[in-house]
Amino acid sequence: MSDSLLQELRTLLGDRVSVADAVRAHHGKDESHHPTAPPDIVVFPDSSEEVSTIVRLCAEDRVPIIPFGAGTSLEGGIGAIRGGVCIDMTGMNQIIQVNADDLDVTVEAGVTRKQLNGHLRDTGLFFPIDPGADATLGGMASTRASGTNAVRYGTMRENVLNVKAVLADGRLIQSGRRARKSAAGYDLTRMFVGAEGTLGVITEVTVRLYGVPEAISAAVCGFPSIEDAVRCCMLTIQSGIPVARVELLDAAQMQACIQYSSLDYDPVPTLFFEFHGSAVSVQEQATTVQEIAADFGGGNFRWADKTEDRNKLWQARHDALYAALALKPGAKAWSTDVCVPISGLAECIEETRSDIEASSLMATMVGHVGDGNFHVIFLLDPDRPQEFAEAQKINDRMVSRAIAMDGTCTGEHGVGIGKQHCLELEFGEALAVMRTLKQALDPLNLMNPGKILQSSD
Amino acid sequence: MSDSLLQELRTLLGDRVSVADAVRAHHGKDESHHPTAPPDIVVFPDSSEEVSTIVRLCAEDRVPIIPFGAGTSLEGGIGAIRGGVCIDMTGMNQIIQVNADDLDVTVEAGVTRKQLNGHLRDTGLFFPIDPGADATLGGMASTRASGTNAVRYGTMRENVLNVKAVLADGRLIQSGRRARKSAAGYDLTRMFVGAEGTLGVITEVTVRLYGVPEAISAAVCGFPSIEDAVRCCMLTIQSGIPVARVELLDAAQMQACIQYSSLDYDPVPTLFFEFHGSAVSVQEQATTVQEIAADFGGGNFRWADKTEDRNKLWQARHDALYAALALKPGAKAWSTDVCVPISGLAECIEETRSDIEASSLMATMVGHVGDGNFHVIFLLDPDRPQEFAEAQKINDRMVSRAIAMDGTCTGEHGVGIGKQHCLELEFGEALAVMRTLKQALDPLNLMNPGKILQSSD
Repeated sequence: MSDSLLQELRTLLGDRVSVADAVRAHHGKDESHHPTAPPDIVVFPDSSEEVSTIVRLCAEDRVPIIPFGAGTSLEGGIGAIRGGVCIDMTGMNQIIQVNADDLDVTVEAGVTRKQLNGHLRDTGLFFPIDPGADATLGGMASTRASGTNAVRYGTMRENVLNVKAVLADGRLIQSGRRARKSAAGYDLTRMFVGAEGTLGVITEVTVRLYGVPEAISAAVCGFPSIEDAVRCCMLTIQSGIPVARVELLDAAQMQACIQYSSLDYDPVPTLFFEFHGSAVSVQEQATTVQEIAADFGGGNFRWADKTEDRNKLWQARHDALYAALALKPGAKAWSTDVCVPISGLAECIEETRSDIEASSLMATMVGHVGDGNFHVIFLLDPDRPQEFAEAQKINDRMVSRAIAMDGTCTGEHGVGIGKQHCLELEFGEALAVMRTLKQALDPLNLMNPGKILQSSD
Repeated sequence: MSDSLLQELRTLLGDRVSVADAVRAHHGKDESHHPTAPPDIVVFPDSSEEVSTIVRLCAEDRVPIIPFGAGTSLEGGIGAIRGGVCIDMTGMNQIIQVNADDLDVTVEAGVTRKQLNGHLRDTGLFFPIDPGADATLGGMASTRASGTNAVRYGTMRENVLNVKAVLADGRLIQSGRRARKSAAGYDLTRMFVGAEGTLGVITEVTVRLYGVPEAISAAVCGFPSIEDAVRCCMLTIQSGIPVARVELLDAAQMQACIQYSSLDYDPVPTLFFEFHGSAVSVQEQATTVQEIAADFGGGNFRWADKTEDRNKLWQARHDALYAALALKPGAKAWSTDVCVPISGLAECIEETRSDIEASSLMATMVGHVGDGNFHVIFLLDPDRPQEFAEAQKINDRMVSRAIAMDGTCTGEHGVGIGKQHCLELEFGEALAVMRTLKQALDPLNLMNPGKILQSSD
């Protein structure tokens, strides 16, 4: 990297440029088990135009560019594995325009989902996509994030109306407009959603909003086995009941959450439900799902109708990772996910559970099971590389199993560097098309290089 | 075109190759006002592998390839404007696999939506996307079709899980898998959806299915003005009521439908509603919408609860084009559409209505107004080119108006050749990115050339 690039960045950004070791280390690290890879320089732009200039300067010097949001990636998406300039987007945190009548909002990419929902509090609207972490909207768009509410409200794929993005040569484009639907040309919005910063840097995002439901009710129900819980979920979905959330926690994860979050439940395979709608509709959904649960040995529904009770419940769910880590002090967590057509979900979970039980590892399982998506959280001793190797084997078997069921190697965590080796199996010849797109839009391979696609240089 | 290509196609397909004038003329014509442009050769493949071979043979000879489904395009999407080989997909009409538990189905691209729903009749499932015409699923995917149910169920963008497609060099790829969500790599599925055959030929489509609602109810309500009707629709959507359909017909279109379909309604601006859900939910939705309608001067709801009454109502809606044509015998219809954020819908419709009234033209307006999408159907004397020129001006003003409102030049009809000149205004610099994608995936510009993107050669 040339000294002149650093000088030029300082001329552009003043003190919003850092080469301090601590800053660089912070920006090379996510929440995954993948090794830290600090960038050479971290910049903190204030505007899309600054991002554009930064990218132009880096392109002139053939220096890699890595966008950084909240740093909550789970597959190594933000490591500067080839050095370069990290663009920290968190200074771009303006909520640009709430269009309440149109049920949408445009934000800068550094706005986090909690910040957005805080801003919306008095409007009667909310943004439902909830990956657990308080991620930025730019990061969520880039990884095609989803989470607990996706079964009802969709993922970032369905909820991003358009993005503003800086291309590899510094051009700033708008991918589309605010109309709810369009048949005009190629779907550039969906091209950036899920591209993990490898095709450009997202600087603004327009997303759909929804009216806060008139009634919300949550319930917890334990089951005799994981299979019973999953089959209850499957029948709920197949019956067309518009559940807002249906989350599975296995017995190990329930044990962890009960301890960590002081919950008064039994450590058995458990579903957390949430119902949204009118008072009548919520009551009707809840009654039907209780009947379905009873058919699968589900115990009594424990209701959380008050906001504070619901918040405690979902906080406990969101803290699942920390709760799991508390089971094994000093452990490193490796959280991985797959997603399968729901008909295969029980089998995929059961076989993965068997693999874990046949291993020497401790791991919990949680799932956004309404979508056919579940996670394994391995708890690994950082000093025992053989544990990581064993986890890798179980992970790879799980991925192969999911793909054999016509599923995908990741439902929501993204590819980063952790799932690259799975794409050939999942996509076959279509992987070459992804390479063609990357080559066409980033011929110098400077945009978050080495992520999603493996490359030889 | 070389004689050897025709020979090679005959060797491959036997009598499933035609150069007959009548066959060529049929395949150069859609339902639009655009001129007929017959291909040189029409082929009728039976399999994805045959399509792949056809494309390879054409690519070797640098001959354009135009996929053809039901021929119901409204923007000249299927004309062979540079000659070439038309691939008629209607022979590929197998329903490959219904995955009832997963609520999805895989079909060959030539399956039509009515054929699919006929096949599903006894399963309790249905495919909701309904553009009016009995289009093929391949064609619907290629134009990102939507229609009356999109306000509830989304468009082809949201409902296609994956496609099988033949690329410009003959490679056959699968764009993704059947998982409901995935964060694995670039969204190749959404790249083909809406590409109008310019990036490849879709040969199979996997789409979502839905349970047939327990209760369905439809209602018709007249309003004092278009603005009242549109504002009723806007408030319905903003209130989060999950209407399945909400269609606007202006007074002229109601008059036409009343005559054409022998309906017993008043010729005033009218909304057609449909509600889906449990019996209780449908009742609740209907009550709320009636209250909203009353606030905007809406008259009594006229209910159609029986299947045959509903079918008559929606058939009348689907026959709107033919009903309009019957207003002016011998006329040619020019159906155009735009889509705007719903806050601008009343204004956009009103101003467009004013333009029509200030012109010498006869035109009706209909709209999938829950999405902010509406259509103008111009009824033009085919012997008076000045009428077409006048329609073009009104169309262009409507498009500019929609884009100024952050809307799009087409909500569902596609670009074809009719909206190409609008893309620069809508996308600006992003249009260059579309050209880059086209160049990368179809460097010889053989896939439905001259559609979506204007090109010089």
